[in-house]
Amino acid sequence: MQKMAATPPRFDQQFRNQFRQLLEWRRDVRRFDTRPLPDGLVDELLDIANLSPSVGLSQPWRFIMVDDVERRAQVTADFEQCNRAALEQFSGARAARYASLKLAGLREAPVQIATFVDVNPDQGHGLGQTTMPETLHYSSVLAIYSLWLAARTHGVGLGWVSILNPGVVKGICEVPDHWQFIAYLCLGYPLEEHTEPELQLSGWETRRSLGNKVIRR
Amino acid sequence: MQKMAATPPRFDQQFRNQFRQLLEWRRDVRRFDTRPLPDGLVDELLDIANLSPSVGLSQPWRFIMVDDVERRAQVTADFEQCNRAALEQFSGARAARYASLKLAGLREAPVQIATFVDVNPDQGHGLGQTTMPETLHYSSVLAIYSLWLAARTHGVGLGWVSILNPGVVKGICEVPDHWQFIAYLCLGYPLEEHTEPELQLSGWETRRSLGNKVIRR
Repeated sequence: MQKMAATPPRFDQQFRNQFRQLLEWRRDVRRFDTRPLPDGLVDELLDIANLSPSVGLSQPWRFIMVDDVERRAQVTADFEQCNRAALEQFSGARAARYASLKLAGLREAPVQIATFVDVNPDQGHGLGQTTMPETLHYSSVLAIYSLWLAARTHGVGLGWVSILNPGVVKGICEVPDHWQFIAYLCLGYPLEEHTEPELQLSGWETRRSLGNKVIRR
Repeated sequence: MQKMAATPPRFDQQFRNQFRQLLEWRRDVRRFDTRPLPDGLVDELLDIANLSPSVGLSQPWRFIMVDDVERRAQVTADFEQCNRAALEQFSGARAARYASLKLAGLREAPVQIATFVDVNPDQGHGLGQTTMPETLHYSSVLAIYSLWLAARTHGVGLGWVSILNPGVVKGICEVPDHWQFIAYLCLGYPLEEHTEPELQLSGWETRRSLGNKVIRR
C-alpha cells in the first residue's frame, strides 16, 4: 500500500539565514567542557546521522561509542605518538607553531565515537560502487557531517581526530575486519565559540574565499 | 588587532525541527525540471560549501561548472557505458530491477558540477593528513554535503552521480593531474518530493533504523 505523501516543507529566508549561521559557527572543536551531555541527546544525534545519503542506500556507517577509560587512554596514546611523528615533518618556526597547536580534545570530551565504514555492507547490493568503491567511505563521512551539524544545533561541539593510526584504532575498538576506520569524534560543550577556524586563530592557515576553486568548462 | 567577537547563535527547538526536516526531505534527485535556477543562486550555494570543514584548513575542494553541451554529452555517454557494465553484475529479477532504475538526471539537470579534490593543495601545510591522507578527499565530500543541504533550503535538488570512470571525467573537465574526481553533481528543481529514498520507492533497498550500527566499547 502506498503511504500517504506528506507535504514537502518550504524553507523561508529566516531558516536559510539560520542554516548559514549553523555552518559559520560549526567549528572543529578541541577545547571541551567535561560536563556530560543530556541523557538521550547522543541517540538523537545518531538517529539524525542515519538520515544521511549513502551509495545504493547501503547505510554503511558504523559507530563505536568508546566509553571505556582504558580504551580512551589507548586512543590518546596513539594520537600522541602520531602527533609527535607529524611534528618531525616540520622545522623552524613552522615546527614551533605545530607544537603549540591543540589538535584534539581526547582528554576532556565526555562523548567519543569511533566511526567506521562497513566495506561489505548487507544493504545496497553494490549499486553505485563499481567504478568508485570509495563512495562507501564517503557515505560514512556524510553521516559524520549530519551528526556534526545536528550537535551544533544543540550547542554541542564536535572535533574530528584524524591524527591516528587506523589499524591501531580498529584494534582498540575490536571491530570486524571488513570495517575500515574513518574518524574518531570527540563531542561535548565547547569552551569557546567563534566563526574563525581554530587553525586560523592560531596562525596556522588562513581561510580563503572560493577564488580559483570554481572553473567553468 | 583582535576582531570583535560576534554573539554565538542559540538554535531553538523550532530550528532543530526544521533542520531535521531538511535532512528528511533532502533526497538524491534524478528527476529534474529543466528550467534554470535563479541568477546568482549557484554562486551562493558554492559560497556556503566553502564554509565546510577541511583537514588542516586545506579547503581542497575544486568545482568545475560543466556548461558546455558537448562535454555534458561526453559525461552522459560515460555514465551510460558504466551503467551497462554495472547491469552485467546482476542477473534475473535483480538485473531487471536494476535496468528499470533511473540513476541520473544528466539529460535534464540545468546545473552540473564536477567536484574534485586537490591532493596537493596550497593550503594546510599537510596538517592532519600524515596517517590518513584520505581526509583530503573527505573534505571535498563535506563541501558537497553543505552545497546539497543549502540547495534544498531553496527547494533545489541535487543528484550525486558516481557511476562514472573518474579518469574519463577528469579528461572531459581538463583538470590538473593533482586533482582527483570525487562526484558529478546534477542540480535543478525536482519533479517530485518525498521522504522515502528513491531506491526504496523503486524496491531496490529498504532504509533501516540504526540497529547494529551502534556498538558500545
